[in-house]
Amino acid sequence: MVPNGFQFAGVRCGLKNKRKDIGLIVSDRPAAAAGVFTQNLVRAASVDFTREAVKGQRLRAVVVNSGNANCCTGEQGARDVVRMAELAAHHLGLATQEVAVAQTGVIGQFIDMAKVEHGIAEAAKSLSDDPKPFMEAILTTDLVEKSAVADVRGATVLAVGKGSGMVAPDMATMLGFIVTDLNVQPARLDVALRKAVATSFNCLTVDSDTSTNDLVLALANGASGVEPTDEELDGAMREVCVSLAKQVARDGEGATKLIEVRVTGTSDPKAVAMTIANSPLVKTAMFGCDPNWGRVLAAAGRAGVAFDPDTAVLKVVSQGEEHLLFEGGAPAAYDPKRASTALKSTEVVIDLALGPGETATVYTCDFGYGYVRINAEYHT
Amino acid sequence: MVPNGFQFAGVRCGLKNKRKDIGLIVSDRPAAAAGVFTQNLVRAASVDFTREAVKGQRLRAVVVNSGNANCCTGEQGARDVVRMAELAAHHLGLATQEVAVAQTGVIGQFIDMAKVEHGIAEAAKSLSDDPKPFMEAILTTDLVEKSAVADVRGATVLAVGKGSGMVAPDMATMLGFIVTDLNVQPARLDVALRKAVATSFNCLTVDSDTSTNDLVLALANGASGVEPTDEELDGAMREVCVSLAKQVARDGEGATKLIEVRVTGTSDPKAVAMTIANSPLVKTAMFGCDPNWGRVLAAAGRAGVAFDPDTAVLKVVSQGEEHLLFEGGAPAAYDPKRASTALKSTEVVIDLALGPGETATVYTCDFGYGYVRINAEYHT
Repeated sequence: MVPNGFQFAGVRCGLKNKRKDIGLIVSDRPAAAAGVFTQNLVRAASVDFTREAVKGQRLRAVVVNSGNANCCTGEQGARDVVRMAELAAHHLGLATQEVAVAQTGVIGQFIDMAKVEHGIAEAAKSLSDDPKPFMEAILTTDLVEKSAVADVRGATVLAVGKGSGMVAPDMATMLGFIVTDLNVQPARLDVALRKAVATSFNCLTVDSDTSTNDLVLALANGASGVEPTDEELDGAMREVCVSLAKQVARDGEGATKLIEVRVTGTSDPKAVAMTIANSPLVKTAMFGCDPNWGRVLAAAGRAGVAFDPDTAVLKVVSQGEEHLLFEGGAPAAYDPKRASTALKSTEVVIDLALGPGETATVYTCDFGYGYVRINAEYHT
Repeated sequence: MVPNGFQFAGVRCGLKNKRKDIGLIVSDRPAAAAGVFTQNLVRAASVDFTREAVKGQRLRAVVVNSGNANCCTGEQGARDVVRMAELAAHHLGLATQEVAVAQTGVIGQFIDMAKVEHGIAEAAKSLSDDPKPFMEAILTTDLVEKSAVADVRGATVLAVGKGSGMVAPDMATMLGFIVTDLNVQPARLDVALRKAVATSFNCLTVDSDTSTNDLVLALANGASGVEPTDEELDGAMREVCVSLAKQVARDGEGATKLIEVRVTGTSDPKAVAMTIANSPLVKTAMFGCDPNWGRVLAAAGRAGVAFDPDTAVLKVVSQGEEHLLFEGGAPAAYDPKRASTALKSTEVVIDLALGPGETATVYTCDFGYGYVRINAEYHT
């Protein structure tokens, strides 16, 4: 399912070995635009460029390259981003300010603009209704393409993305593109995007490192004529963003499983869940299928959020089984072998109740040899 | 060199396989005592017990076990700690309130007090001037014993410690014991200990996880008759603590090298240095001997501390060579092969200048397959 009025392309121009590395999304009419951007002080020129572009509220296209993040590349890097937008605009018959730019890949290397120039020209010639070539073109260390779709009364919300480390500057970054033929004003799209990101991408961590190039862009071109209610729009945006966030966690560098960390109670359950989700000791225990609940509690205890450890109730849920591990200040009577077997699943929930209150869910993955291999052995 | 008036013991009682697991330090007279303790909300009963014991200002002995952290073990765990102090006091002819207790090892398992009872009795019989058996008895995943010595006008400051993950609850925790025959009042010892810890153990990270059982204890028995000046005491304490912190980082789980992260400038250089030192991407790059400076800058940029990336100057220093990697907002003209070769050293300095101001130094290690192996494959 693809929203009306959008076309996609993905081609190979040689920034990466043997894989597609230039992508285009084009709307046949001006689309309401909204974006969220990395908070890292050290960020790529394309992030600043696209933040400015979104301020125009309407966009027609986005051009993306993988294989080079074009970050920490000074004034030349900034000029190259503008040039990419100019080239895309030229080949698509648009104005430069109607084009957004996103980049992902190695930090600190100048991008080969001769290749990019050729790639954009080729991409502009190969536009089609099929988003798959685009999805391939934005990948770095990702093993699989990632997309999610929601339907709103016959209109379509399509999200495509990439990401495998929250940042692995020489190879992986989170990028997300949400395109829809719903008819939405830019300001309302911005609200919906921010709401959706708050409980999806901002509740996602692979390795605690924040990217220099993170960017999620939403485009709504109205081609379906459907005007969604706030509830419909928020629901569809949330659905595709949470799905994409889970796909990124599951495909985290070296990951063998998706882990959902659910924390209930305290003044800041998300901070506790994030600390657990980022703990190398929790993540390596999950990789080893070890129900080492002491590591979960120890991580919670250092999150900087007040709670009484004696009231904590900790469970793991996996393959439909619930294993109570800790309650009333002392170990519960669980079967370590059965709990360890349950952790062999590719989906595990860590559920920590610290009192009455709201529940925060954070998505992450385990931490194994593959992460070290990917990030230590492939040199810049 | 061992301070006068102290004796040591280390024996095996069976909490761990084939290795010593019960240690004693005993002073022949009341010693001024000071301590610093983990800030983790989830902490072992021995931490609370020893914090109370130190309030009495004078101690005669400390009993330590490895192989079991006795944490998250509720009221029974708390009773077992008191019992350990009582047993040590009984065999040494002391009052219970003159004995401190420290524990390290797996979280969430009740300690086998029959073994401990036997071990303490044996340890009390084997006291000697040699600290080595004690140093062995407190190890968990550590590969080497750790100690440092300073001389103050013929008096001795001896620090012994263990630690290999900041926390790896089923096997490793940071413990430190500083014993001296200097004549120091408890309040002054407390000041010197806090000062020394601030720039040593509190500037140390292996894996960002804070232990449930961390504890550093200082005992000064005055047996040398030497009364140090403030400068002498602070200098000697700092010297042994920094040495021990570096030894812990170098022996971090799976580590192949000691990394010193030095950050100059900004309102909080230590926060920036800690974020770099805890970045899995920086640590895996160091393991792979990859001068991937983009990861260092990206980590600095997410530390929550304001700076202008264009003014950053980043170097690595290793084997007497300095390699300038980034300056003036763009990559420097360095030789990647030479920089990579330099990183093969077992000691590397990452030096990041972000403007005028103070320099903070944080000690850490790289992050490789060994960390995953130690923390994923050995089940609780």
